[in-house]
Parts: sequence; C-alpha cells; structure tokens
Amino acid sequence: MLYFRNDYGAGAHPAVLEALCRTNMELTAGYGTDAYCSRAAETIRDLCGLPEAAVHFLMGGTQVNKTAIGAFLRPFEAVVAVAGGHICVHEAGAVEQDGHKVIHLPAPDGKLTPELLRAAAEGPVNEHTVVPRLAYISNTTELGTVYTRQELAALRRCCDELGLYLYCDGARLGSAMDAGGTSFADYGECCDAFTIGGTKNGLLFGEALVIVNPALRPGFRNCMKQQGAMLAKGRLLGVQFEAILKDGLYLELAAHANNQAKRLAEGLRALGIQLLAPAESNQVFPILPDGAVEELGKNVEFEVERKMDAGRTCIRFVTAWHTAPEDVDALLNLLGG
Amino acid sequence: MLYFRNDYGAGAHPAVLEALCRTNMELTAGYGTDAYCSRAAETIRDLCGLPEAAVHFLMGGTQVNKTAIGAFLRPFEAVVAVAGGHICVHEAGAVEQDGHKVIHLPAPDGKLTPELLRAAAEGPVNEHTVVPRLAYISNTTELGTVYTRQELAALRRCCDELGLYLYCDGARLGSAMDAGGTSFADYGECCDAFTIGGTKNGLLFGEALVIVNPALRPGFRNCMKQQGAMLAKGRLLGVQFEAILKDGLYLELAAHANNQAKRLAEGLRALGIQLLAPAESNQVFPILPDGAVEELGKNVEFEVERKMDAGRTCIRFVTAWHTAPEDVDALLNLLGG
Amino acid sequence: MLYFRNDYGAGAHPAVLEALCRTNMELTAGYGTDAYCSRAAETIRDLCGLPEAAVHFLMGGTQVNKTAIGAFLRPFEAVVAVAGGHICVHEAGAVEQDGHKVIHLPAPDGKLTPELLRAAAEGPVNEHTVVPRLAYISNTTELGTVYTRQELAALRRCCDELGLYLYCDGARLGSAMDAGGTSFADYGECCDAFTIGGTKNGLLFGEALVIVNPALRPGFRNCMKQQGAMLAKGRLLGVQFEAILKDGLYLELAAHANNQAKRLAEGLRALGIQLLAPAESNQVFPILPDGAVEELGKNVEFEVERKMDAGRTCIRFVTAWHTAPEDVDALLNLLGG
Amino acid sequence: MLYFRNDYGAGAHPAVLEALCRTNMELTAGYGTDAYCSRAAETIRDLCGLPEAAVHFLMGGTQVNKTAIGAFLRPFEAVVAVAGGHICVHEAGAVEQDGHKVIHLPAPDGKLTPELLRAAAEGPVNEHTVVPRLAYISNTTELGTVYTRQELAALRRCCDELGLYLYCDGARLGSAMDAGGTSFADYGECCDAFTIGGTKNGLLFGEALVIVNPALRPGFRNCMKQQGAMLAKGRLLGVQFEAILKDGLYLELAAHANNQAKRLAEGLRALGIQLLAPAESNQVFPILPDGAVEELGKNVEFEVERKMDAGRTCIRFVTAWHTAPEDVDALLNLLGG
Repeated sequence: MLYFRNDYGAGAHPAVLEALCRTNMELTAGYGTDAYCSRAAETIRDLCGLPEAAVHFLMGGTQVNKTAIGAFLRPFEAVVAVAGGHICVHEAGAVEQDGHKVIHLPAPDGKLTPELLRAAAEGPVNEHTVVPRLAYISNTTELGTVYTRQELAALRRCCDELGLYLYCDGARLGSAMDAGGTSFADYGECCDAFTIGGTKNGLLFGEALVIVNPALRPGFRNCMKQQGAMLAKGRLLGVQFEAILKDGLYLELAAHANNQAKRLAEGLRALGIQLLAPAESNQVFPILPDGAVEELGKNVEFEVERKMDAGRTCIRFVTAWHTAPEDVDALLNLLGG
Repeated sequence: MLYFRNDYGAGAHPAVLEALCRTNMELTAGYGTDAYCSRAAETIRDLCGLPEAAVHFLMGGTQVNKTAIGAFLRPFEAVVAVAGGHICVHEAGAVEQDGHKVIHLPAPDGKLTPELLRAAAEGPVNEHTVVPRLAYISNTTELGTVYTRQELAALRRCCDELGLYLYCDGARLGSAMDAGGTSFADYGECCDAFTIGGTKNGLLFGEALVIVNPALRPGFRNCMKQQGAMLAKGRLLGVQFEAILKDGLYLELAAHANNQAKRLAEGLRALGIQLLAPAESNQVFPILPDGAVEELGKNVEFEVERKMDAGRTCIRFVTAWHTAPEDVDALLNLLGG
Repeated sequence: MLYFRNDYGAGAHPAVLEALCRTNMELTAGYGTDAYCSRAAETIRDLCGLPEAAVHFLMGGTQVNKTAIGAFLRPFEAVVAVAGGHICVHEAGAVEQDGHKVIHLPAPDGKLTPELLRAAAEGPVNEHTVVPRLAYISNTTELGTVYTRQELAALRRCCDELGLYLYCDGARLGSAMDAGGTSFADYGECCDAFTIGGTKNGLLFGEALVIVNPALRPGFRNCMKQQGAMLAKGRLLGVQFEAILKDGLYLELAAHANNQAKRLAEGLRALGIQLLAPAESNQVFPILPDGAVEELGKNVEFEVERKMDAGRTCIRFVTAWHTAPEDVDALLNLLGG
Repeated sequence: MLYFRNDYGAGAHPAVLEALCRTNMELTAGYGTDAYCSRAAETIRDLCGLPEAAVHFLMGGTQVNKTAIGAFLRPFEAVVAVAGGHICVHEAGAVEQDGHKVIHLPAPDGKLTPELLRAAAEGPVNEHTVVPRLAYISNTTELGTVYTRQELAALRRCCDELGLYLYCDGARLGSAMDAGGTSFADYGECCDAFTIGGTKNGLLFGEALVIVNPALRPGFRNCMKQQGAMLAKGRLLGVQFEAILKDGLYLELAAHANNQAKRLAEGLRALGIQLLAPAESNQVFPILPDGAVEELGKNVEFEVERKMDAGRTCIRFVTAWHTAPEDVDALLNLLGG
C-alpha cells in the first residue's frame, strides 16, 4: 500500500530518535525543568528573535490548543475561527469543554481575514453575548492553504484594532513557513502566541508553545499541570526539539514534504484532475469520480475529505518528511499518469 | 413613551401579585419542597397529561436552559440549534460554560427542521468530534415564528431516528400555543423536556421545566443547586405558577398579547411596511427607513433587530399581556396610519 | 407548629412587598439597567463609603458565590474556607462545577483566622498544585458566630501579605453587623468583595454583590448572564433593596432577629441546656437528649444539625425579622422553661 | 550525584526503546487504532482475565485520572480520596477543573478504608450537597504503602454497599503488585476501572486505563480526544506496552525497584533512622536531622517530603527499575552505614 493518509504515520526522524537513544539513561529532573528543555526553549527564543518569550513543550495539538486557550481567556470570552478550523471540527469540543464558545466564520479557502474578523466583532457584542477575544488561525490551514507575511501582519493590525489576541496553531508550521515564505520571527512579531508543531514534522510527539504576549505568561505551568499536559519525563520534548531544530533540519523536512506535494499536485493537474483548494503545502485534495476513489483505495491509504456531489468525492493526500519520491510517482501512475 | 420594547417590562399580573401578597407571611419549607410547588407541579402534570413527569421551577430562561442541558448531556455531547437561537446568541455562552458545544444551523425563519437536523447528524461524527445529542428549539422562535403540532411531531420522529433529545425552550410557550394551536399535551408527547415560561407571561419571574424522559430525571435537583438555580423561598415560584395556570389565565394572557401583535402587524401591512418574518406571535419585526426609526424612537421604546442595508433598519415591537389596544393604535398613528 | 426552621420561611417584609406592589405595572428596561437598581446601588455605595465600587444584584446565595468566584479566579486558583463553610458543604459543589478547588480548613468555631490562612499558604504551593487565591468567609458563620472589626482587619492584612482576595459571603450580613458591631464601611475597607444578603433579612429574594477591588470588576455582567444570574425583571431587586435599606430598616430587622435569638439562648442556658457554639447572632444550636428532640418535633419546626453521641443530638433554631417574642417564650416553655 | 529523586528520571527500559526503534519507520493509522495498541490491549485483557474490558492508552497520570473521572461522573458527583492522595495535592486541581469536588479523608498511612468511606457516605448527602460517587485509591499510595487483595476486596464490597465506583490509580501498579502480592486479575475483580502505570516502570511515558464496568465504557474515546489525551502517533503507546508486558518484564522491573528500596530501608533501620511510613514498595521516607539533610543534598538527589518539627525533616528516596545496588550501598554509606 502506498501511504498518503497523514503526516503522523511514522515515528521520529532518525536524528531525533538517535538523540532519544543517546540520552535515554540520563537521570534528570522531571516535568520539563531539565537542561534539554531549557536549551530547546532558548533555541526557539533565538530563532524567533524573542529573548523574553515563554516557551512550553506539550504533547499534542489538541492539548496545546485547549490548554493555551483555557489559560488565556476569561469565562465569557470566545474564540473566533474559520468554520473548518481544527478546533471547530476535529477536537471533540475541547475548547468548549473548558467553557469557551468558538465562533465559526465561513471561509471557502480556510483562511481567516480581517474582513471576517470585523464582521464577527461587529455582530452584537454586549452583556448578553460572549465577547470575541482570541482569533484562532492554523498555518497551514485545514485545506493546506498558507498565510503570507503580509496576511499575518494584516491580521495582527486587525486584532490590535479589535482588541483580540492572535493565536496561530502551527501543527504544520514548518510546512507553512516553507510554502508561505514566513520565518519564525514573523510569528513572533504577529502573534500573541503560536505553536511549533513537532508531531507532524519529525518528532515522535511534541508541540512547542511560544507565548509572546507577557500578559499571557503567568500561571501557565499550573494550567498545563491541571490539564494533564505536563509530561513527567519532560526532557523527552526538549531532547526532540533540540534535535529537530539543529542545523535547519525542521525546515528541511518540511520542504521535502511540500516538494513531494507539489510534484503530486502538478501530476494531478496534468491528468486534468480538479483540486478542492490550491495545493500550497503538504496536503492535496483531488476530486475524483467515486469509482476511481474506490479503485484507488485498494492500493493507497488516504482520507476521504467529503462527498462533492452524486458522482464525485474529494479525498486527501498528505506527504511527509519521509515520503519517497517514487511513491508519488507510483500514486500518479495509479491515477493514470 | 409607548412601550413595545419587550414582554418583561412590567411586574406580575394582578392575580399573581395578589397570590404572593396573600401568602406572604406563611412559613413554609424552602427550596421548592412546599405545598404550593407540589400543587403547581401537579397542575402542570395534569395539563400535559404526564402523570409521571418531573416538574421543576427555576428563576429564568438562561438559567433553566443551561441547568437542563448541563444535566442532560455527557461532556462530549453537543446541542444543535438554529443559528439565531436564544442559546446561540443571547445567553453569553452559558451552555458552553458548562462544557458543551452548540452547533449552529442556518434557518432563515428561525425554525429547526428535520432536514437541518439530518444534515447536522450526517456531518462527520466520530471519535474526534462532538456528538450531537440534543436538539434545541424555542417556541416561539427568536423571530416570532411558531411550530405547529405537525412540525413538532416531525421533529420528534427525526430525533428518535437520530438518537437526539428534543428540548423546547418555552420562554414564550403561551404565545406559541395560542398562535400555533398546540396544547400542553403536544409538548409532553413530542419533547424529552420543555419549559413553560412565566417571566414573559404574567409572573414576576419563573420558568417551569417539565422533564418527560425518565432517563433525564435523576439528580436534577442536585444540578439545580449546583448551578445556583434553587430559590431559597422556592414557594414563590409555586404560588405564582398556581395563580397563572388557574382558569386558563396563562393562555388568556398570551392570546391577548398575540392579538395586539396581530392588530399591529395588520396595521403595518396596511401601511405598506415590510416585515422581516411573518408576525405569527407577539413579536413584530418591521423594516423601516433609518430616518423613520430615529423619529419613532422619540416616542416609542423598541429594540433594534439589525441593520438591513444602507438605508433601512429592522426593529422589533413586542406586545405583552398588559399591552393596551390604544397603545397599538397610537403606535400605528405615529407610523402614519 | 412553632417555626424556628430557618430565616427564609416567610415572604418579604411589608415595606418591601408594598414597594413591589406599588411599582408593579411600571414599564422599565430589563436586566438591572433600570433606575431602581441604579438608586439601590448608589445607596449601597454611600453606606459603604465606596463611591467607585461596582454593585450587582443577584438572586440567591449560591448563585452569587459561584458567579463571583468563577469571575474572579483563573482556572488553577483555589478558594480557602473553613471546612463547615457554606460553599464547602451546602452548595452542591457549585464552586467546583466552575473549575475551582475549595481547600477546607478545620475551625471549631466556624471562623477563619490568619493562622489558618498562613498554614494553607505554607503548604506546598507550586506548579503541581492549585494556588490559594481567595479567602472565603461568611459573616455570620454557619455556626452563627460573627467576626469583629478587628478580626476582619486582621484577615485583610493577612490576605495582603499572602496575595489573597478576601471575599465575605454576607447572606446574614445584617445579623453579623448587629451582633459584631461592624458597619457596611468595615466590609468596604476589609474585603475585595462582599455580599449583602436580602433573602434572609426581609426580601423575597436577592443578594447584593459589592466589588471593591477594581481589578475584579471588568466583565462581571457577562459572567452574570453566562451563569444565568441576570434577572430579566432586574428592577425587582433594585426595588426591594431600595425599600429595605431605607431608614435603617435592614439593620432594624436584623437586630430583632438577633434579640429573639439572644432571649432564646439565655432561656436555654437558664434551663441548663448546652449550646454547640456561642449564640452570637440569629442561630442557636442547643444539644438535647434524643428523646427531647423527638418530642419537640411534634410542636416545633427546626433543623437537625448533627448527632453528637449515642444519646444526644444538636439541633438548630433560627430566628428571623418576623419571629414573635411569644413564640420564643412558647418554645422555652416546651423545653421546660 | 546519587539519584533517588524519583522513578521517572531516566528514559525507557532497553527492551522498550528497542521496540520503538525497530518499528520507527512503520506507517500505521493514528490515534491508537493500530495493531500494536490492539495487541497490547488484548494482552492486558488476558492478564486481567477480563475478555470484555475496554483498554485505553493515555500519556500520563494526571491526564488519565482527570479524563477517566470526568468521563465517569455526572456534574454533581464527587470523588472520595485520602487527603494526601495524588489527585488531592499533586494534580493542580485537575479533577475540579472538570467540575468535580474531591472530598479529602484523613488517613495517616495513606490508605482508604471501608470505615473512612462509610464516614464520608454518612455525612449529610442530599440535594444541597455533592454526591460521593467514586472512591479513588492509588496503589502504591503516596506514602509507599500498598493494598492487599483482602483490602481491595473489602473496599469493593463497601463500594457496592454505598453505590460507589472504585477507581485505582496504578501509576506504580507494578510496585504495588510485587509488594502486596496482588495480581492484575485482582484489580479486574475489585475495581470499576484502574490504570497500569508505564511511565514509572520502564516506558518513556504511558498509562493504560482498564475500564471493567461496562456502564463506564461508552463515549470514552470522545472524552479522551476532548481532553487532548489521544496521542496522534498512538501506536507508540501500544508498542511500549507490548514490550514491557512481554515475558513478565513489567513485574520484574517493579520487583527490582522494590528490592532496592527494601535494602535501603533495612540499612536505614540498622542506622536507627526512623521512617515516616513502612517502606512497603519503592519509596522510603526517612526522618533526618535538618543538618544531615542539608549535608546529604550535596551528594544525593532526593525530594523533601515535609518538615517534621523544629529540627527534623522527612525526605523521600525513590528507587526505580534502573537503580544500581551499589548506589543504595553508597547512599547508606553517606548516611553513616
């Protein structure tokens, strides 16, 4: 079977695994208070040009989103996100479980815009409503589209104007940076907080949360613990992030994934296959006849995105740091290339 | 000033106030364990033809909605409601505060339908999503439209098919019954739980919650207490409901409010004024030129519903059990009638 | 039956009821934005010498406690209270339902002290624990004891030292003020927030929350709404508080209740009956042989506080603004006086 | 430095690490739906003699406790635990954050007993209180004491009688089984749910939750996801548990840790050093003069348990699967042995 199901099907990049094995029998303090976490946090602060930022390491995407949002907001404050956003549909109501409404905004390409934000803020906001307070974006988006530096800066300005925090879920941040030409520093400049996703780009697991806004920093470690989000052997996260951030490996892996997706998308287009959204990063959403989807399923692992109409289905291919170019070729071959 | 702002601007109907005064110095047990509450509950069970139903008395609409929904659902279970529903926009995220997502469905006329419910249930529902579990309707709706018996029955069948509870917020149940030709028994037949609103139809305050589904009854009093929704002098609720339900007063008051709204709507139509929604109950939503709205505001109290376009605004007139027919005449006069 | 069960068995004081009747048909804005609430809030600010304080009117004791505490604390922050405190045992976990731990401290006389607070704060407090942040007291306490001005001031200093908010649940504040010689201004000086209880001292229902600390004021109305704690006909609270605070009526009623309790306690002592706690306010806790308790139950309504040992039970008598002196005499007679 | 700080200072047992490395580049489905998790769950069901039990793999102890308790209880239901229990003092209010009160019971040796449970259940439980519903124990306890089969069975009978669930936090279950002579099957027989701790006994991380009671199983995967407790690369948990449960390795490692603690405790007793609690498992709590503690800190890593009195402090030594016998000797030497 060819594997294009997702970008968390394999374990860790060899360099990350090597670091884990090398340090395995060291005896350190727990809960992320070790030297590995300190160094990894320092590296991230350096990369982002944020000498004062708080950096925390958590285990997964839903966990970091819910812990951060739960820590940042007061009870009546709400999140604004595009309707297809990860927190809207793929996290089982994790944000709501902590008491906060997520306001869904329509966005055909999966991207939040100042216009959408303004519309949400202009809706009646008073003592009888929730108060929109945090704009959630993910980069890349659920549709694989990406934000440019200009778009992030425009969102920042709009958030300043409307009194909103800007939070970027960077579960696929490497892919977004490679595809959109953004840098770590751009997120430091534009966001109140953002995550650097490890799970989908070379780690066994791990998301780094960077809290830029000083007002959002106090008490975060208590919130982590309360949410069950503080790993006992916390150094595992520091060790892994240290390894993946070394010598540009993080971006290198993301670029590989993006490049394979680009090759795949070009091949699909050459075959006349329509895509649901522009293939900007490492996810490709071809729309195929139902019969073709069924046939493909015999040889390829993928996810079904949605039924388009009576005869056609949109599916999702995801490439990863370990996707072999030959597998892309083989997939295109199966599709008639 | 003419008062068409809402139906909770005045105090209690004289018969209710008289009952409160008459019983004022009696000494009873607290928290709704008194004879007045028992009798009022029994009256409601009789009216609904539900000899086994649990009946609880709470203080307000948001309170009863959040307490009921919080008591009925497991953490990952969600509510489905039309996007303009009271719990979606007017309760400050009360349901979410207790941990539950409210899924918003579009409905131009404010009414939930089996088709909308099926669409929500057919969306991907799996281990990574919330699970729709309770269909929330209000009757009358936020737009003043009402459900018929047939529509309620269709929703019931659909909920059975999809494994959903049907919950009816009856903050204006009297008005809905009068306008839609439904009876208390219809709600008992179609709903897992519903409320009988007193605040907007003759009481100082008070909503009766009828829990029809036996599986939803256990522990409800503890949930009420935990939510701060158990009135110390609980008998005040029993005394008031007993008074308002006597001799058909509840429906009589609602019919009066509806009739004044009907007269108003007819007058508006005669004046060529467009309405946002059919004026089926005690709320009327005329669309007026901005200038006319401003002018009207000098002599009439009303709410602004929304800006329609560059030059027009939709406002809301609400009639109540105490609305004087002459006030309706005077309002129409002001509008050029 | 003689009624010594509680101080919320009757309705409202005649002056309060009269005000409700007199204003019944007025048409005002809802949710506490009316002139009655404004005036009552202003009166409270004047009485407390707090021209800037926020004053909110809520419906009941559990409701005001949970709404205030939920609004004031961050998720990992905890409440410290004596083990027998109202929020510890009589509110069905209302504070915990909003996510906050309540730390129970032992206190034989029901009163929190600086020593107890320091012990709680000196327990290990770190990233793995909740952080004590709000000291909850009630005055009067659950045992009917009261705090003096000096004790309140000492708690204030201790809270300042430890970084705690001081919150006083004044469900029986009138009784506490009369018994302990404290004034409204003392609470304004010593507390970050406190309540002035109406339910147990002449109102149909209603607790005023005074937020002294400016940092705790923003967003409180949204929290009220979210908690279902904003009364639609909010003016009912303003009307009642205005009436009860006029001409010293509030304190007068409390003094009456205290005086009857004092007479009762003296009579019990004269009969050689032991009390569980000093009868400082309007609650008296005699310890009686089980047989005497059973016998008494035939003619008197009271609550059982607890079983003391094999043969004795502690019961509770509560006096109120409407307790007739003859009823106290009659009760003492029944007990052999 | 000698390391006796805790049992989560090192990485994984070599056999576990080998399994992770061997399977690293396999491509599997995510979120624990892979064959490794299926096999590990099957192994656990076999070991416990529970062919129908639900087995879930989570990442850490606080996470599994809060997710399980949050999934099992209704809003007003409470947990009963000994006051020093992990959920009471070391989890930052995680259970309360999900809305549930934890009732603390005093227990000098850290063990819950039927007598304590009965006392808690006999406290006033009514509509105004939380309802105790889940008895939480940890085995081993926070003081290193262990439950025998008879004690577990007695708790089971008591819980049946009182209508309580029995939940065992097995963060150190291997150690408890070795020390107390209990088997996996004993937990299956006595508990409604229990965990098998991996983090402290050979895994990088991971706790298996066994849900014995069928009523507690539905919807648990949604709760996991909602709590951020579903690992994307879920197979990492299956791979590790498969490796550690093979050929009795799990119990072998626990026995090693216990044996080193036993040697240490015997050495301490020979030195006349008093212990806070019997050293039944892999934690030892010597009470030492403050000066000795300070001196020891120069060469040994350990935790301070508590200040005993003016001159003495209780500290904690923890042994682990990797503790070298020579390190125990060296520690005893440092203490004057």
